[in-house]
Amino acid sequence: MTVERRRPTHGTVILIGGSEDKEGARLILTEVVRRAGGGPLVVATLASEVPDAQWERYHRVFRDLGVTALRHLAVQDREELVDADPSAILDDAAAVFFTGGDQVKIATKLGGTPLFDKLRDRFKRGMLIAGTSAGASAMGEAMLVARGLEEPTHKVDGAFYMTRGLGLVAELIIDQHFAQRARIERLIGAIAENPGVLGIGIDEDTGVVLEPDRRFTVMGRGAVYVADGYGITHTNVSEKSRGQTLSLFDVRLHVLNHGTGFDLGSRRPFKATHE
Amino acid sequence: MTVERRRPTHGTVILIGGSEDKEGARLILTEVVRRAGGGPLVVATLASEVPDAQWERYHRVFRDLGVTALRHLAVQDREELVDADPSAILDDAAAVFFTGGDQVKIATKLGGTPLFDKLRDRFKRGMLIAGTSAGASAMGEAMLVARGLEEPTHKVDGAFYMTRGLGLVAELIIDQHFAQRARIERLIGAIAENPGVLGIGIDEDTGVVLEPDRRFTVMGRGAVYVADGYGITHTNVSEKSRGQTLSLFDVRLHVLNHGTGFDLGSRRPFKATHE
Repeated sequence: MTVERRRPTHGTVILIGGSEDKEGARLILTEVVRRAGGGPLVVATLASEVPDAQWERYHRVFRDLGVTALRHLAVQDREELVDADPSAILDDAAAVFFTGGDQVKIATKLGGTPLFDKLRDRFKRGMLIAGTSAGASAMGEAMLVARGLEEPTHKVDGAFYMTRGLGLVAELIIDQHFAQRARIERLIGAIAENPGVLGIGIDEDTGVVLEPDRRFTVMGRGAVYVADGYGITHTNVSEKSRGQTLSLFDVRLHVLNHGTGFDLGSRRPFKATHE
Repeated sequence: MTVERRRPTHGTVILIGGSEDKEGARLILTEVVRRAGGGPLVVATLASEVPDAQWERYHRVFRDLGVTALRHLAVQDREELVDADPSAILDDAAAVFFTGGDQVKIATKLGGTPLFDKLRDRFKRGMLIAGTSAGASAMGEAMLVARGLEEPTHKVDGAFYMTRGLGLVAELIIDQHFAQRARIERLIGAIAENPGVLGIGIDEDTGVVLEPDRRFTVMGRGAVYVADGYGITHTNVSEKSRGQTLSLFDVRLHVLNHGTGFDLGSRRPFKATHE
């Protein structure tokens, strides 16, 4: 798989590492609401096995936070999108929020449908896209795929456990529940395959707000890891090296907390404070 | 805690990430034996709760590998070293091999004793030191200490879970069972506290052979992570920031496999093949 560089996208994207606070200060979801600007907010539960339960949960939270126009985008099956195109739901939407579950479901249901064309079009015109957990991972050009319960190792093969995401955020491979599931090795394996891409790992109850100017700032309780493969001087990743132990020189790693950020254009972290 | 730079030590050190192969090709233990050159090999079980069982196990393996002169250095209690100094065991030893267990026990039993003075003296005159698991970690200037079962987080506090090691290998913080226990975050926390130090994380059945010229090569099945804090441009670690989420810019990370290595002098990885 190759991850091409694209022109910057035009909406704002909020990526959340999962398990965002829904009861207390609700820092991150409040930011989602603020950025949606009071317009209709669509909750997309495509990743979930329990879409109705998720809809009810987020409906309650977002309503509590003052959103009056809430819509549920539920797609059980890709065929539904052929029979009846539900994309009218996006016509005047200010934001779409993707809930968690299985990120592959988001891509297989949405990819190559009129609904996705509409979503991308609206996004390019400034609509906010937000996603938590699997809903965040699906936004990248490539998605990391779970390898099951096998023993953790540092094999080259880690670089191949990827599939195509929606590509709304180019240049990024996004991982979530990061500290909680100790996933940094798989993120590093992923950038080994294409050092041009940036890997970001987002902790639970932590989010990044990626602006159209390609700068993102971190908010929330945890950390965001950024693994930059741009300066890699050696990697042994190739089809032939499957089964071998990974070897990789000169990965640049940043650990970002609330109030710091990263510029995807210059590939530099920065200290900042939220507005 | 500060970790000072020291003059290079003079013996060779073999650091093993634990669970080294004891039944098959025994690549790493064979290298220990080869480096010991047939001379007396001392098995030091200071870290262990079951020193006799460990001694029996390693006695069998090393004997199988052709070592005829094997000695057991067992210290149940620091007081033993006051009553009777067992350091004569080191007089003509070619190598000391530290087994696993609790690395803090190694430091608390050995530190500031005539036995340790003798060990360091023999090491400076060229004696081989090897250690596996806790026996590897104890060789560093600082040792990482387990934080118990609390939820994994990316807090500044990670930088403070350290205590003094034996300091036979200066400039290094050594972690082991690395892939298997998903410990990279704690290694990064550790170098955040003193960016001048190098953190190395060694997988199971994997070792590094550190030569007196301060270059080490990797051998075995897994990977060795090297986290270099030298170029760090920002860290929020301070006593006051305890409880905050870690923030750290520009860590340099290398993933090394069998046949690659690292030069502690130039802080550069290299590709090499074993002799």
